[in-house]
Amino acid sequence: MNDTAFPPPPGNPAQGRATQVLAREECWSLLRDTSVGRLAFVVDGWPVVLPVNFILDGEEILIRTAPGAKLASARSPAQVSLQADSTEVLYRSGWSVLVFGCATEITDAAELIRVSSLPLRSWAGGDKLYWIRIRPVQVTGRRLPRAWQYPDPIQ
Amino acid sequence: MNDTAFPPPPGNPAQGRATQVLAREECWSLLRDTSVGRLAFVVDGWPVVLPVNFILDGEEILIRTAPGAKLASARSPAQVSLQADSTEVLYRSGWSVLVFGCATEITDAAELIRVSSLPLRSWAGGDKLYWIRIRPVQVTGRRLPRAWQYPDPIQ
Repeated sequence: MNDTAFPPPPGNPAQGRATQVLAREECWSLLRDTSVGRLAFVVDGWPVVLPVNFILDGEEILIRTAPGAKLASARSPAQVSLQADSTEVLYRSGWSVLVFGCATEITDAAELIRVSSLPLRSWAGGDKLYWIRIRPVQVTGRRLPRAWQYPDPIQ
Repeated sequence: MNDTAFPPPPGNPAQGRATQVLAREECWSLLRDTSVGRLAFVVDGWPVVLPVNFILDGEEILIRTAPGAKLASARSPAQVSLQADSTEVLYRSGWSVLVFGCATEITDAAELIRVSSLPLRSWAGGDKLYWIRIRPVQVTGRRLPRAWQYPDPIQ
């Protein structure tokens, strides 16, 4: 069932809720507490969006990958974005953070040893021997406050 | 706390799990039961990824929007993608569907009246008077099975 079919709770209309712009520090804080996002890159003019596990390394983003489209995109090097969000269907609310950055493959041996010690666990199986670093050039985020509160306050 | 820091449950290693390719029908079925996805489009070479509420209209995707980047992208018309996913952090599993398509703004009056009757509810406030239709050219999906079962089966 598509939850868009639910009527809004009585007395708690969602109208007028404005999206709030997140401060840069809050964007990074949300990303730090998140382990799944989406890597987006452009192939032949198409925006490709694929789920990835990621970890922060200071204010840079690291992902691990196997040979494939993600790695190819990082070898360009490429303009990519990393998007993460969290939604609460019940409250029709959530946040989203979007990081634009330059992706490059990590090839320096000492750096590979260092990042391999980071707690970046990939959910998918298979050997993910390659590391991609995203150097951010812009970080933005938005939050949509809850449409209503539960339990419903006495009117 | 970053959940990647959790050790895997004993006796249930995630290794060897392969990502499964979803059939086209299953991709559409998952999209039908989902109301929040991400619209991706390319601006100056950057892949922009923004959350959207969407609804299916047959095998086309409809979103509503206010003037802004999304609408501008549809007025090109543009190569866009619509991505939706669902993840289970506890099980380190999930699915993801990616639709490449051509986005156009709906301007025909009769068509606007028809789509306005569809139960597409936008979470964000504000007037979203414009409708964008995405005509798919490719639909792909992947599923990552659960890494382990809970409760843990008797070994």
